[in-house]
Amino acid sequence: MAESTSQWADYKVYYHNQTLDHFNYRPESYTTFRQRYVMNAKYWGGANTSAPIFVYLGDEAALDFQIGSAGFLSDNAPKFKALLVYIEHRYYGKSIPFSSREEAFSNASTLGYFSSSQAIADYAEIILHIKKNLSAEKSPVIVVGGSYGGMLAAWFRLKYPHIALGALASSAPILYFDDITPQDGYYSVVSKDFREKSENCYNTLKQSWSEIDRVASQPNGLSILSKQFMTCSPITSASQLKDYLDSNYCEAAQYASPSGDGVSRICNAIDGTSNHTDILGKIFKGLVSFNGNWTCYDVNAFNNPSETDEGWSWQTCSEMVMPIAHGNDTMFQAESFDLDAFVQDCKNAYGVSPRPHWITAEFGGDDIKLILERFGSNIIFSNGLKDPYSSGGVLKSISKSLPAIYTTEGSHCLDILPSLPNDPKWLIKQRRREVEIISNWFRQYYTDLANH
Amino acid sequence: MAESTSQWADYKVYYHNQTLDHFNYRPESYTTFRQRYVMNAKYWGGANTSAPIFVYLGDEAALDFQIGSAGFLSDNAPKFKALLVYIEHRYYGKSIPFSSREEAFSNASTLGYFSSSQAIADYAEIILHIKKNLSAEKSPVIVVGGSYGGMLAAWFRLKYPHIALGALASSAPILYFDDITPQDGYYSVVSKDFREKSENCYNTLKQSWSEIDRVASQPNGLSILSKQFMTCSPITSASQLKDYLDSNYCEAAQYASPSGDGVSRICNAIDGTSNHTDILGKIFKGLVSFNGNWTCYDVNAFNNPSETDEGWSWQTCSEMVMPIAHGNDTMFQAESFDLDAFVQDCKNAYGVSPRPHWITAEFGGDDIKLILERFGSNIIFSNGLKDPYSSGGVLKSISKSLPAIYTTEGSHCLDILPSLPNDPKWLIKQRRREVEIISNWFRQYYTDLANH
Repeated sequence: MAESTSQWADYKVYYHNQTLDHFNYRPESYTTFRQRYVMNAKYWGGANTSAPIFVYLGDEAALDFQIGSAGFLSDNAPKFKALLVYIEHRYYGKSIPFSSREEAFSNASTLGYFSSSQAIADYAEIILHIKKNLSAEKSPVIVVGGSYGGMLAAWFRLKYPHIALGALASSAPILYFDDITPQDGYYSVVSKDFREKSENCYNTLKQSWSEIDRVASQPNGLSILSKQFMTCSPITSASQLKDYLDSNYCEAAQYASPSGDGVSRICNAIDGTSNHTDILGKIFKGLVSFNGNWTCYDVNAFNNPSETDEGWSWQTCSEMVMPIAHGNDTMFQAESFDLDAFVQDCKNAYGVSPRPHWITAEFGGDDIKLILERFGSNIIFSNGLKDPYSSGGVLKSISKSLPAIYTTEGSHCLDILPSLPNDPKWLIKQRRREVEIISNWFRQYYTDLANH
Repeated sequence: MAESTSQWADYKVYYHNQTLDHFNYRPESYTTFRQRYVMNAKYWGGANTSAPIFVYLGDEAALDFQIGSAGFLSDNAPKFKALLVYIEHRYYGKSIPFSSREEAFSNASTLGYFSSSQAIADYAEIILHIKKNLSAEKSPVIVVGGSYGGMLAAWFRLKYPHIALGALASSAPILYFDDITPQDGYYSVVSKDFREKSENCYNTLKQSWSEIDRVASQPNGLSILSKQFMTCSPITSASQLKDYLDSNYCEAAQYASPSGDGVSRICNAIDGTSNHTDILGKIFKGLVSFNGNWTCYDVNAFNNPSETDEGWSWQTCSEMVMPIAHGNDTMFQAESFDLDAFVQDCKNAYGVSPRPHWITAEFGGDDIKLILERFGSNIIFSNGLKDPYSSGGVLKSISKSLPAIYTTEGSHCLDILPSLPNDPKWLIKQRRREVEIISNWFRQYYTDLANH
């Protein structure tokens, strides 16, 4: 027989009958839904040697695209002889409760089961199920996640230490709740990223907002702007265009890749225009260089909300209330986070109010060093300082066993992406440290297990 | 003004508008109910000095009776200048969701919110509310509980380390789930307690069960037994009488007090009868000596179930599934725990099935030393080895900061009861160690706080 021709041949899909509500015993809570997970046992050393299990905790997207990008697992499976498991987050992908996605998303009564605590308990149940099925009760489990998934990974180790030996929480802004992090943290980093690239670019961007306002306030101003920015449909307000540009800059900063980042592309384009070009002309050049050459630009992102948009919209309107605002000292127009307005919008959209203080009540965050210096262990908080979300991450080690590892040059979740031939040294070094730390967890665990 | 004439004058009652379901965002989950808690600030050093807060976590009873018996709090409040808080468990006492107790207990749809995770989250919310109200965010919180409340205390520290600095978990059988503890653990201790008192007494008790069966199988046997044991109504099976005697022996063993315990009373009575008395005559003498002189004995405990009986019945039928059985080598007739029958009984009673593996999935328990030796801190597991529930308790220290403190002579929750003038030395010593350990937690915390 030939070797499998596809790199995906070793990845097998499973479905678990998952409990709808883990914390409630109403008859409806017992309803189950099919939750998808994927396993790759190609490199696994097996239960006999208590070989480890790496579990990728799915976040706000279908699992399909996450498996390929969770390079930390596949890259390190051979070294650790690890079983690889990827679990899809409830309400995403094929892991939808109720009879259809339409029904699940139809109202707060069906969406109500869509919460981080339920998701974490799902992971607990599936990991226990897998370990039991494989008689791998002694195999140490490492949970890995990025961004929201990174928060889940950190919280999972804190809440279920009996199920996960450790967690790699990549780019997890667990401190971006309840104003633990200043509201302008995110946009300050975006601004810094651009300013460090080019002072001229930064100033151009900074001036552009009032220029958009000025043009918009003229007769036919919105029509002029629509033409200049080649929008797919006429814009109906200046905000529409500004929000669109805003999100492009954020994306450029957040996902800056070592092999060529959006911030550079935007600034090179802006700085490269002739002095005769007006500000908005420069801004458009920047947009095109980042976004590509299109016949038109779809400024209204919510025309075609993705599954992630829809799911995350509910999540932010229930518990993931992250007060992110422009603040007063960024390259964006000053704007604060209006909690009351946010709550009202959510109420209008879903009929229920967010619980903006729940995440810190349930998972903590305030005074995290004081609280966790003498409690808990085995979580790596990794960040890249070019990532705007790093402003809400853990950047100082809490204790020896709760280390923070950041790179100055890194962006969002870079360390858990697949390693590439041209990866820079600082990234290779970050990953190597993570692997070393996890190796030490295993060494300690197997020693403890032998002495047990 | 004279000093307050009542010792209760300093205890003030409050009600918190508590969220019905913390982990779900259905509109119904937002319903609130009034949850009772009591505070005594007489000894509190105040927020300015970050003086500590002791919180008693209510268990399966109305709060009323718990405050007086939670002596560890009132006895130590002056020394620690501690604020005392007592919180009632949802679905008990005056902390009943829905419009009435009848409605709350009417079916699984209203009972479904009655779970340990919800109860613990209730405590988290109320403690945060109190701290915020008193501007006492930096005051360290110690949670205290006994038996089921002791489990809640241990679990609270594990799940909410950002809210409680430490826990005193008295007589908490957190390992009596999922067969971590042998099923006969409880009855083995009961038997040992009797046997250590008197071999003759133990043998008499051991022989009595088959004697009851023998008499019951005779014509009019049940009527004979009813008369001999002066039952308030005729018994309808031998089991009824045996279950009643069983529960008396368990109570005698569990609540053995240093100032005179039921095991001694029963055995002294049994051993003191003349040799002419038959076995069941001896048994009845033992019962009377323990239970008191009554005109009749109500063998059917479920004729008048208490609030605790009714609440705990739901709790054991939902998640608190403790597989306790006589086993093969006790002074009781051999009997194993039949999970299938238990599940079926619960289904019949409530329409929903227990989740017998949930407690260990949510809170752990297996290999507790391996798991927690390098995770978590500041939980005292206290036990008395004469307490049958100690068989499911943590009797070996897990780590330096997760100590187990037991006494050979102690019974159920003895250490947290009010201290008495004639308390034995071993009990005084146990409490003193607990106070020392908690003092050290505070010392460490205030040092950390100052360096923070």
